[in-house]
Amino acid sequence: MPPLPLSDRSGRTTDSPITFFIQKALETPGLISLAAGLVDEGSLPTADVAAAVAAIMADPAAGRAALQYGSTQGLPSLREKVLRHVCAADGVTPGDIGLSPDDVVLTTGSQQLLYLLGEALFDPGDIVLAEAPSYFVYHGVLQSHGVRVVPVPMDDGGLDVAALDAKLADLKRRGELGRVKLVYTVDYFQNPTGLTLAADRRPKLVEVVKKYSTEHRILILEDAAYRELRYTGPDLPSVKRFDPTNEFVAYASTFSKPLSPGLKLGYALLPSDLVAPVLHLKGNHDFGSANLAQHVVDRLLASGAFDRHVEELRRVYRAKRDAMLAALDAEFGDVPGASWTVPGGGLYVWLTLPPGVDAGPAGPLVPAALEAGVLYVPGEFGHVPGEGGELPRNECRLSFGVADAAGVREGVRRLRAAYRTLERAGARGLAAV
Amino acid sequence: MPPLPLSDRSGRTTDSPITFFIQKALETPGLISLAAGLVDEGSLPTADVAAAVAAIMADPAAGRAALQYGSTQGLPSLREKVLRHVCAADGVTPGDIGLSPDDVVLTTGSQQLLYLLGEALFDPGDIVLAEAPSYFVYHGVLQSHGVRVVPVPMDDGGLDVAALDAKLADLKRRGELGRVKLVYTVDYFQNPTGLTLAADRRPKLVEVVKKYSTEHRILILEDAAYRELRYTGPDLPSVKRFDPTNEFVAYASTFSKPLSPGLKLGYALLPSDLVAPVLHLKGNHDFGSANLAQHVVDRLLASGAFDRHVEELRRVYRAKRDAMLAALDAEFGDVPGASWTVPGGGLYVWLTLPPGVDAGPAGPLVPAALEAGVLYVPGEFGHVPGEGGELPRNECRLSFGVADAAGVREGVRRLRAAYRTLERAGARGLAAV
Repeated sequence: MPPLPLSDRSGRTTDSPITFFIQKALETPGLISLAAGLVDEGSLPTADVAAAVAAIMADPAAGRAALQYGSTQGLPSLREKVLRHVCAADGVTPGDIGLSPDDVVLTTGSQQLLYLLGEALFDPGDIVLAEAPSYFVYHGVLQSHGVRVVPVPMDDGGLDVAALDAKLADLKRRGELGRVKLVYTVDYFQNPTGLTLAADRRPKLVEVVKKYSTEHRILILEDAAYRELRYTGPDLPSVKRFDPTNEFVAYASTFSKPLSPGLKLGYALLPSDLVAPVLHLKGNHDFGSANLAQHVVDRLLASGAFDRHVEELRRVYRAKRDAMLAALDAEFGDVPGASWTVPGGGLYVWLTLPPGVDAGPAGPLVPAALEAGVLYVPGEFGHVPGEGGELPRNECRLSFGVADAAGVREGVRRLRAAYRTLERAGARGLAAV
Repeated sequence: MPPLPLSDRSGRTTDSPITFFIQKALETPGLISLAAGLVDEGSLPTADVAAAVAAIMADPAAGRAALQYGSTQGLPSLREKVLRHVCAADGVTPGDIGLSPDDVVLTTGSQQLLYLLGEALFDPGDIVLAEAPSYFVYHGVLQSHGVRVVPVPMDDGGLDVAALDAKLADLKRRGELGRVKLVYTVDYFQNPTGLTLAADRRPKLVEVVKKYSTEHRILILEDAAYRELRYTGPDLPSVKRFDPTNEFVAYASTFSKPLSPGLKLGYALLPSDLVAPVLHLKGNHDFGSANLAQHVVDRLLASGAFDRHVEELRRVYRAKRDAMLAALDAEFGDVPGASWTVPGGGLYVWLTLPPGVDAGPAGPLVPAALEAGVLYVPGEFGHVPGEGGELPRNECRLSFGVADAAGVREGVRRLRAAYRTLERAGARGLAAV
C-alpha cells in the first residue's frame, strides 16, 4: 500500500495525553479518576438545558434561528452578554478597557481559541513563554505549530513576573526577541497547579510585555477557564483589565467548566486588530460554532440560570476540594518532603512528592496507582525540559472534578496505598530515577 | 502601536465570500437571497429537536452523558449509526468496504473535516485537483494551506475523469506528481453547479488515483454534503463504495443540510491509517465537537425522525427547485446564450449567461441585482484562474434553499429585471468585460 503523504504539521502533532486519560476514566468501571478534567456529573444542568431548549423551540422564530446557520463570529446578543459578564467581574465598563461586542469571538470551547490564536500568530521556530508547569494540552498545540516553549517558574503567587522579565531580557540578548510571540498564563486556579496569579503581578505582567514589544507586539494569552469556579477569596481583576487600549491581552474563557462541557462553547475578548485574522481562520475551520449551543447559553445568561448554577457549583466543588485537602492531610501528612497546593478554586490540587520519586508516565507510581484503583495525571506532562534537559517527575495533578467527596477521599487513600508499595520497594521504587 | 506579529498562514488566509453573503442575507429586510447556502427555514426540525432534548434530559444518566465531555472521535453509538446509514445507501455492509466505526470521525460540520484533512496532508506548494467550478469556501481553505488548485473540467456528468487522468499525466511529465495530495469532488448535486458525478465515472475515479499513486497515495476527498437532498433519480453509490480496501477515499458529509445547520455536526469515513493523524489534530482544535448535538442526532437517527425529516425535506425542496426551474424557463428562456443546470437534488442551479456578461463581484450585475432586491453568488468565486489566467465571469450560483417557492419565483424575476438593465445599458453593461 503506498504511504499516506502526511504534512510536516502532521509529523509534529501527537496524541494528547488527556485523550488517553479521559478514555481510561470512561472505560474502567471501579476506577476512581483523580485524573480527567471532566466536571462534576451530578450538578450538570440537565433541567436548565431542557427548559432553555423547550422555550426556544416553542417560539417558532427562536427555534428556527437556533437551528439555522449562525455567523462565524457568533450570536451578537451572546457576545454582548459575555462582554458584560467579564467586565462586571472586573468592575469596569467595556469602554473603560477599549472593548465592544465586535471584539468578542465565540468558539468551540476555549480550546479552539487557543488553537486559532496560534495559527494567527505562530510560524515554526517562534517562541512562547509559559508557566512551568502549564496546561499540557496547550503544549501539544504549541508543538504542532512548531513553537518552542520557554518555561517561566511559578511560586505561590503564580507566574513569577520578575523571572519572565529576566527570560525576555535573556532572549533579547541572544537576538531571539523577534521570535517571541506570546506569553501564556492560566491565571485563575491554574491547570495543573491550582495556583492563581497574585493581584499585584497582574498589571506588572502587562508592563513587562509592553517593555519588550519594541519591534512587534508580544501578546498575553490569558486563559481564564476556571475563573468562575472560585471557592475562597475575592475575584481578582483579570490581566485584560490592565490593558486599557485593548492591544496586548487576549482573554479566553469557556462555558464548559461553569456550565456544561457538552455545549462546547468558549469565548474570547481579543485586541481589535486580531479579530479579523482569527475570524478568517475560523471561517475555514467551521464558519461558526454550533449555533444551538449559543442560543441555549444566551437564554441561560438572560434568565439568571447561569449565575444560579455557578453558585451551586461553588458549593459542590468547595466541599470536594475540602475533602481532597483533608484526605491529603490525613494520608500524606506523614510523608517527609511531600507537599501540595491549596487552591482557592478550579478543579486541581498539585501534589509534590519527595525528590527522586518517579510519578511520571514511565515510572512505577502510575501502574501502582492503577493497580490500587486510582488514576492521576503525571505532573511531568505539564513540563517542558529546562535548559539543562531536566524534567521534574515527582509531581501529580489531582482533580476533584469527577469523583464525589467520598470518592475523592477514597482516591487519595488509594494513591497513598500505591505510594506505600513504592516505599516498600525501597531502592527499586523511590530511588529509581 | 507595535504591529501584530501575524503568521505566514495568516497572510494566506482571507475572508470567505460566503461570510459577506450570509451577513447580507441576514441583515437586509426585503432582500430575496438566492445566494446564501442557508437551508429552508420553515422545515427546520424544531419539534424533533425539542422532543429529543426533553427525552435526553428526562433520563438523568443520558442527560449527564450529553452535557459532559465526549471523546475527540465522537459518540460511539452515533459513529456506528452513521456508518450503517452510508453503507445502507451504498447497498454494502461496512465489512464489504473495509470499514468499522473506528474509521468514523464526528466533526463540527463537514467543514471541519475539510480543514483537518488539509492540515494532515498539505504543505505549502502541494497540489489539489478540483472540479471547475468548485466549492469556493474550500478554495479558501486550500489557499490558507498554501496549496495550488489545478482545475479539472466538468460536463453534465460531473468531473471529467478522462480530463483528470490527462492532468495527472501532465503533472507527472512535469515532475510534479510528488506534490499531488488530493482530488476533491462534491459528487452529489454539487455546490455550486448542482451537477452529479455519473455512475460509470465513480469506479473510474478511484482507478485513476490508484494509477498515479506510485510513490505515495493520492487521496480522493468525496464531499457528499448534499447526498440526502435528492429529488429525482436513483441514489448513486458513493465513490467510497469503490474503495474496498479503505485506502484512497475520505468520505465527508454532514447533518447540516438534511437536518439542521444549528447542530453543526458532520462526519467522515476515513482510510484507517488517516484516522489517528486527523484525531491528533482535532485533539488540538477542540478535543471533540459539541457532545449535546451528537446525542441529539443519535436519538433522531434511532427513532426514525431523521429519515422522516429527510423525506419531508425532499418534498419541500423539490417544489422549490421546480419553482426555480420554471421561473428560469419563463424569465430567461428568451435570452440567447443563457443556460442552466437541472439538478436532481441539492440546493443550487447554475446559471450561465451569454459570454461577455460580467456577473462577477466587480461587474455590473451584482449591484443591479441588489438594486432589484435579489442576491446571488457570482460564479467567479467557484473558479481559480486557468493556465492562461482566464476566469469565467458569466455564471451565477442560484440557491433555492432559503426562499419559499413564491420567493424563488420573485427572486428569478428580479434577477431578470436586473439583467434587463444591463441589456439596456448595452456596451457599458453586456460587453464591458
